[in-house]
Amino acid sequence: MADLVDPAPDLSGWSCPLPLRDHPMVVMGHGGGGALSAELVQHLFAPAYGGPEMAALGDSAVLTMGGARIAFSTDSYVVRPLFFPGGSIGDLAVNGTVNDLAMSGAVPAYLSCAFILEEGTELASVGRVAQAVGAAARAAGVAVATGDTKVVDAGHGDGVYLNTAGIGLVPPGVDIRPQRAAPGDVVIVSGPIGLHGVAIMSVREGLEFGAEVESDTAPLAGLVQAMLAVTPQLHALRDPTRGGLATSLHEIAGASGTGVVLDERSVPVPEAVAAACGFLGLDPLYVANEGRLVAFVPREHAEAVLDAMHAHPHGRGAAVVGECVADHPGLVVARTGLGGTRIVDLPLGEQLPRIC
Amino acid sequence: MADLVDPAPDLSGWSCPLPLRDHPMVVMGHGGGGALSAELVQHLFAPAYGGPEMAALGDSAVLTMGGARIAFSTDSYVVRPLFFPGGSIGDLAVNGTVNDLAMSGAVPAYLSCAFILEEGTELASVGRVAQAVGAAARAAGVAVATGDTKVVDAGHGDGVYLNTAGIGLVPPGVDIRPQRAAPGDVVIVSGPIGLHGVAIMSVREGLEFGAEVESDTAPLAGLVQAMLAVTPQLHALRDPTRGGLATSLHEIAGASGTGVVLDERSVPVPEAVAAACGFLGLDPLYVANEGRLVAFVPREHAEAVLDAMHAHPHGRGAAVVGECVADHPGLVVARTGLGGTRIVDLPLGEQLPRIC
Repeated sequence: MADLVDPAPDLSGWSCPLPLRDHPMVVMGHGGGGALSAELVQHLFAPAYGGPEMAALGDSAVLTMGGARIAFSTDSYVVRPLFFPGGSIGDLAVNGTVNDLAMSGAVPAYLSCAFILEEGTELASVGRVAQAVGAAARAAGVAVATGDTKVVDAGHGDGVYLNTAGIGLVPPGVDIRPQRAAPGDVVIVSGPIGLHGVAIMSVREGLEFGAEVESDTAPLAGLVQAMLAVTPQLHALRDPTRGGLATSLHEIAGASGTGVVLDERSVPVPEAVAAACGFLGLDPLYVANEGRLVAFVPREHAEAVLDAMHAHPHGRGAAVVGECVADHPGLVVARTGLGGTRIVDLPLGEQLPRIC
Repeated sequence: MADLVDPAPDLSGWSCPLPLRDHPMVVMGHGGGGALSAELVQHLFAPAYGGPEMAALGDSAVLTMGGARIAFSTDSYVVRPLFFPGGSIGDLAVNGTVNDLAMSGAVPAYLSCAFILEEGTELASVGRVAQAVGAAARAAGVAVATGDTKVVDAGHGDGVYLNTAGIGLVPPGVDIRPQRAAPGDVVIVSGPIGLHGVAIMSVREGLEFGAEVESDTAPLAGLVQAMLAVTPQLHALRDPTRGGLATSLHEIAGASGTGVVLDERSVPVPEAVAAACGFLGLDPLYVANEGRLVAFVPREHAEAVLDAMHAHPHGRGAAVVGECVADHPGLVVARTGLGGTRIVDLPLGEQLPRIC
């Protein structure tokens, strides 16, 4: 992991290795949100669908309909187990899609919720998941407006898979997308990272890392609106879910062509997350979060935005973790704790499958 | 099946039997679109989600956002096999959601498309499905605006599951929903029924019924707009997918409280469908369609609407099959070929699992 390189690395000609492009089968990593997922979108889905909308590749699409600017997003949820410390698949399904909408500055309004149930699953479990969906939706201020249920035969599912899609209104004057990140932007993370991934890992593997670690799953639209109340000039937002903070930074650097410098020492990593990652040989920068965002904010607004975040329940732990530079366009470079620098690469897959 | 009753049945006190309400496990029928599915919505999902939106229970929700009336719908697709005569899971996923939007009179605009892939699935199959999605979207005049991919371990999926959600604009003055059906309405079916179900059945079971039967999967938004050009006064529309024509009629009768009289001899049933149903002991009224609609149209507009349907490629086989009456409110009664009448009940589940 911590692949230390020369403090002033020569990045010319460097490119992300994509060795599995011609792999003939689906592997777990294709669902990991890393390089393999990106390949699938770039080489398989985008050419099949065509059209400019897919090209934007933000967390949600922003579409103009009947004079309104509508954000639209979807995610499926296959997390295992269905219930874990701090939440459930139902919380993820609501908060995940609410957050994807929020990352374009939208005020989320309505969700769809589609279940794929495995024959033989206890209806009581399905009911608990539905209750969690309802409670999370109320907490996020959205309504479940439409749904669907399919059942697959035993041995072709895993209890409950969920899909949510969501729509929300983007306020006038707001234009938040990965492409807008630019040199001079300050990079802010809204709170401690790695909690969701470690919570899932610990319950799945039966490990304990001191105090019980709970998922950070939370709806972030209120936090984003509080940031927008300071200035509509937020450039880019992302919720670092699968693939973690490193992947989000990588995607924004790639989409905008800006260079990102990450100050590793400033990244808030809870002690239990650090301990778990040390024990398991993982890098917290790549561990999934479900209630955090990373914001690219013009330097002149950064302090006021950070103050607004600190005043919000979901932004109390916000911290500046880096900046955008004109050097090494499109790449993320970390200043390490040892004073060196390293390239922060896009992971191939996900360290832990079925994390969300 | 053909449960002949007295020509003037006493329907007082009759109610649909729901014997599995307290069944502790998910059974295949919970995904069949019949009584078990309705139970799940009524007793499990609706109380969990709350809110008035879920109560409408149309094929799509119609929501006002930023002054625009937006139709919003979702469906997951778990059909087996992925490819069948006349189409594929990709065609169903596009046309199914496009049609759900069209049933509220909306002009479908954008789809989300989320894949749940099973580890070990050939990427070539995934590619063929994606190509089908893209082609069907172009044919339906919609764009795939956002997507997601998750991977589940081998043995926890079945190649490819798909979810689409869709959004479309409802034109001003259009108010189409099941509740609006009323005595005096003429019931029109847009073409021959049962083709999708029999196509899936024949390929899955390796049966042949004379000529190869192809799925009717098709996008119906253009047909609906052609009908709306005659009059905005269409009362109710439904695409009779899972559970077939009988289930759609049942749902509209129940939602509106109108009585529906179906003239069985007028229902267009292709010879091969009749043969297959005879052979397998099925009732064509309950067999799934993926490119048909049933319309409830005020009598004074019925002839002109029927003419417009006949002039459209997807409505050439349109036929009047019944009417709404003040008698037996909320129930569907069929005039049989033998001159008697029978109650057309809501099926418990679906005759053929994983049909879409």
